[in-house]
Formats: sequence, structure tokens, C-alpha cells
Amino acid sequence: MSDYLRPELKGLDPYVPGEQPTGRSYIKLNTNESPFPPSPAAVEAASQAAKGLNLYNDPDSKALTHAMAQRLGVPDECVLMTSGSDEILNFAFLTFCHSGCPAVFADITYGFYKVFANVNRVPYETIPLKSDMTLDYKDYLGINKTIFIANPNAPTGLAISRDEIEEIVKSNPSNVVVTDEAYIDFGGESSVPLTQKYDNILVTQTFSKSRSMAGARLGMGIGSKKLIADLNTVKFSINPYNVNSMTGAAGIAALQDEEYTRANCRTIIENREYTTLKLRELGFEVNDSSTNFVFAKHPLISGEEVYLKLRDAGILVRHFTPENIKEYNRISIGTREQMDALLSALRVITEEIK
Amino acid sequence: MSDYLRPELKGLDPYVPGEQPTGRSYIKLNTNESPFPPSPAAVEAASQAAKGLNLYNDPDSKALTHAMAQRLGVPDECVLMTSGSDEILNFAFLTFCHSGCPAVFADITYGFYKVFANVNRVPYETIPLKSDMTLDYKDYLGINKTIFIANPNAPTGLAISRDEIEEIVKSNPSNVVVTDEAYIDFGGESSVPLTQKYDNILVTQTFSKSRSMAGARLGMGIGSKKLIADLNTVKFSINPYNVNSMTGAAGIAALQDEEYTRANCRTIIENREYTTLKLRELGFEVNDSSTNFVFAKHPLISGEEVYLKLRDAGILVRHFTPENIKEYNRISIGTREQMDALLSALRVITEEIK
Repeated sequence: MSDYLRPELKGLDPYVPGEQPTGRSYIKLNTNESPFPPSPAAVEAASQAAKGLNLYNDPDSKALTHAMAQRLGVPDECVLMTSGSDEILNFAFLTFCHSGCPAVFADITYGFYKVFANVNRVPYETIPLKSDMTLDYKDYLGINKTIFIANPNAPTGLAISRDEIEEIVKSNPSNVVVTDEAYIDFGGESSVPLTQKYDNILVTQTFSKSRSMAGARLGMGIGSKKLIADLNTVKFSINPYNVNSMTGAAGIAALQDEEYTRANCRTIIENREYTTLKLRELGFEVNDSSTNFVFAKHPLISGEEVYLKLRDAGILVRHFTPENIKEYNRISIGTREQMDALLSALRVITEEIK
Repeated sequence: MSDYLRPELKGLDPYVPGEQPTGRSYIKLNTNESPFPPSPAAVEAASQAAKGLNLYNDPDSKALTHAMAQRLGVPDECVLMTSGSDEILNFAFLTFCHSGCPAVFADITYGFYKVFANVNRVPYETIPLKSDMTLDYKDYLGINKTIFIANPNAPTGLAISRDEIEEIVKSNPSNVVVTDEAYIDFGGESSVPLTQKYDNILVTQTFSKSRSMAGARLGMGIGSKKLIADLNTVKFSINPYNVNSMTGAAGIAALQDEEYTRANCRTIIENREYTTLKLRELGFEVNDSSTNFVFAKHPLISGEEVYLKLRDAGILVRHFTPENIKEYNRISIGTREQMDALLSALRVITEEIK
């Protein structure tokens, strides 16, 4: 730490991304990436855009915003494209939370929320999930705080219904409800239609998972025109050129190649159901996932041991250390071959304890 | 404005980027872009990287950081690569300014500084330039505030010496001095060597201008290891994957093609000297620019009139409205052909008043 750090930021505990291994080649099931390359159309569009990098990108991302809005069936003014969904989430913490309206989210959810709260110096509270890791929507009714719900939730993989989200939105008219739909294309019901009915819901989504564009950084927020206008004011006060030319072009092309995305999602869902079944056969407890990962624990082998032994076997999964989830591992769904390699390694590990 | 905007952000006045025209084709001399395409090696590297977008980019940008550090002759730990230099500037406002240590900058400088201060809710003060638009370094000695100096300055185009920056840094040991070197490759003396001698200087640079990568969003901060560590903590609390894969790959390739960058800078400097000479022949007062733009006014024609008449003639330049610079226009330096088109149009405009 330097002598110059702002006092309020002392002790800031940053987000820790999943391992990005170098050297040894791993089967990488630790950061919920797609095992499939981006659409060839997206690659070609990005390559073309690279030739014109000497010019600034369009700060309004007009063409991309229009393509996304058309896909979602909402007006262009209800969509703000961002540099990953992390950017729209950070903007939401900055724009809608304050001392009079703290942030609130589940105790087990995307680990970045508390970091966003801290770096934006806004208070936050957490609400425990139920013992089966489901979220009880009734805990969020009429609480008058800025609510963040990952739906489906990470790392649990569990979703709540749009009707339940709607009850939360209706009962909190004086604050914003943010539903983080990073994994919505693998299950769950999107709350995007609610943005056209209520002023106080912001839905966030990403191109990182279902559209195979994690390395491009593209996300978005969908909300009422007024919410999006507020978020645009903040965007133009922090990062006006937030979606670079190549990512913008790739995003438009990916939206035009929707069948490619849908086919990949179908494959991931099939592989998830297969993996869940096989893991249960090996004795693992596995949540019913609506995402591109599963969250699993073994009754007789610690989460850390599973993680370390898989690592030794050349397979990376994500292990978290908080007490209430430390027996679990979050395993991204890859190709069938990758899942079979995982299952073989786990078969060895589970047989060792017999 | 929605009903949900954080009270402290009400009245936030965002940055206004230069016009990005659609429809009619303009000679675009309004946003200090390079008229030259990016290095073919950078285009090729970005295209290759696009194929692997399904994987997250390296959140540490290790390879890019190393290449940049080597180029600058500093340790890797003294460099933080960012999404444009706007990102490192925003981080600096957030990280080093606070109620006990306000920001301070010139009254005529990059218009984004006051927006960064406002969105980060830190107080700021401005110090007037001298009547000839030069910055008097003595105004910044021992002032115990977080100092932001664009060097060379925009939109004036004028630079101060590294020795003067060093005096400012030495006399303010308890606060950070940020020198924004967006235009350093076109003139002026870089303060990067001072970062290896003092703990309290942060230098920011960009790939947008000299490396023809405005649309890729790539910038950086250079400072002591402790300053960079603080800024990294903030980066990992806001935007861990800040430099996307394509931009990172293009950046490395651009650094390997340094002769291309140098040749383009030499051409821009030649065209700037030519343009300055010809503008003066037409009766314009023109600052001695160390950048890729000139700042010029005519004693008999208002700045707004020059701007509008050039626009009618198909040439976009940047006109600002603050009282003390409203008679000027900032004109980016393009190719010789673009400059000749500008000069022809201005010849017509100046002849009309005879």
C-alpha cells in the first residue's frame, strides 16, 4: 500500500478471478467459459473492425444497441451495452445505492457484489439463503433497499421464477431491483419483460457465456428508459467509449448468428444433465442447475480435496473457501469429452475412499 | 432522471465526446485520431485473438504489461494497462483524491477531469493558465493536493519541461502528481523516468493517438510499485478483465512494430509544422503545439463561425464553448491531403472578410 491511498479504500478486498493457468495444459472448468469458439461471423466482424482501430468507436454503440434491443423486443432506449456485465453491475451500485438505500443480496451469490459495494463506498447487507441453498423471494418483499439477485444464482446454479421476481419488484416501488441474468440462456425465466411494465427493475446480461465472448467483454443492462438514462449519464462520466470497435462488431455479428448460440446452449444443457446424472451415480450431491455449471459436494470427501486431486489430474474447477460452501466445487460444463475426463478422474478419487 | 438516482449524482454533467458523424462523409479533424490505420501486425494479432474469445482474457495482462514495461525501461510492477487512459485517470481520481486531498488541475485542460472528480464525489479546484495559455509550474509547488497536469496540455497543445514537473513532484511529497501524457509521442519530454525516482508521480499514456488504436481502448499508468499496487487493487475491485483479448494482442503487436509508430509520428509532426505555418500565413494565431493537433483562432472571425463554415465545407474540427477558449478551434493533424483541404477551406473563409 502506498502512502497516498484514499483512507476509505484501505482494506479494500478485491475480487479474485478464477485461476488462469500458464505452463501445464489443464481442462479448464473453473471460470464458466464456453468450450465452443465464438461464431465465425463474430470472428470475421472483429477482424474487419480491427482495420479501422485508428478511429474511435461509437460512444453510443448505436448499431449494437439496436440489434440487441430488437433481439429482446424492447425499445433501443431501454438497453445500455457495457464492457462485460461487470460494468453495468458496477454502474448500478454507483448509481442506485447510497447511505439512504443500501445494497442487499444473498449471502451466497456472485462474490463481486460486496466488492462493488465496498469500492463504491455504499453500505450493504446480506440475506441468508435457505438451508437447501434456494432463495426465498419472501425475504425480499418490501425491504426498501437496492436488491441484487443473480437469477439463476451463482455458484448454486438455482433459479427463481419470473413471478417471484415480479412480486419483489412490485413490493419495492421506491428502490431498484437488479436481476443479474449472466446464466439465463441455460435455463430460468428472463425478467426482461418486466422492464416494460415496471420502472424499478434492471436486468443485466452478458455475451461471456452463451455467446462465447468472455474475452471480448460485452454485457448489457435492460430497464425503463429513465433507469437507462441515469446509467448512461454515469457511463458518459466514467467510460464514454466503453464498448471497443472490435467487440461491438463481434456482438452485432453474434446476434445475427443466433442459431449458433442456441445450438451451443442446447449442447451445454445436454452435457449438464449428463454430468449431473453421472456425478450423482458417483455419490455426489448436485444442485439442479439452470446454468452452464454444476455445484456439487461429496458426503465423504472434502471440497478442497476434490479440488486439489482434480488439479493434480489436470482438471481445474472452482473451489470457494467460505464456511457454508467450502465442501462444494463449482464445475463448468464443457464438451462431452471434457465431462468424461472429469468423471473418470472423479471415479478414481471416489474409489480411493472405498 | 429516474426516481432512483443517488442524490449525490443529481446534476452530474457527463463528458461530451466529439461528434461522430453519420450520413455525410466528413474530413474528421475533431477527435485527435490518427489518420493512419493501425499497424498491420496489430490487425493480424487482433484477428487471431478473436478466434479464442470464448476464454477470458488474462486479468493481469501479463504479456502486454511486460512488453510495455520493456519499451519504457521500467519494471513490470510499475505498469498498469487499462481500457484507454480514461480508465487509469478515473482510477487515479477514485484512489488518490478525497475530502482531505482534493484534486487540482488547470482551468483550461482535458474536460474530463472535472467529470471524473464529480462522479467520484471528490472536491476539485482549478488553477488558471497564464494569459498566453502556458502553465506556470510555480502555481503547483507545495500545494498538498492531488495534481493532474496534461503534458502536453489539451486543447492548448503546450508542454512544460520534465524539470518543471520534477519541481512540482519534489515539492508535494504527501500527495500524488498525475501527468497525463496522451500526446507525448508528438513532442514534449516524458516524465516516465521520474517514476523510478519518486513515489508520488503517476504518468498516464495511451495507444489511441500515436499507435492508431483509439477504437481498441488501450492506455496505461506508470508509477512506483506501491502506487501501481494501489491502482491494481481498485482495478480488481471494478474491472478485473479490463483489457480484452483482442486489444491486448493488438497492443503487443503494435509495440513490436515500433518503427511504424515512429514513422507515423514523424509524418504527423511534419504536417503539424506545415499546417501551423500555413495557418499563420492566413492570419490565424496558432499555439506552438507539441501534440497531434493545433489550437488556433483568427483575430477577425469568431471561433464558432470558423467551426460552422468548416462544417459546411465538409470538415469537422472541435469547438469548445467556455468563454476563455471560445474563439479557438482545436484541429487534429491528419494527412497532408486533409490538411490541404482544411487550408483551402480556410482560405475561402478568410477571403470572405476582406
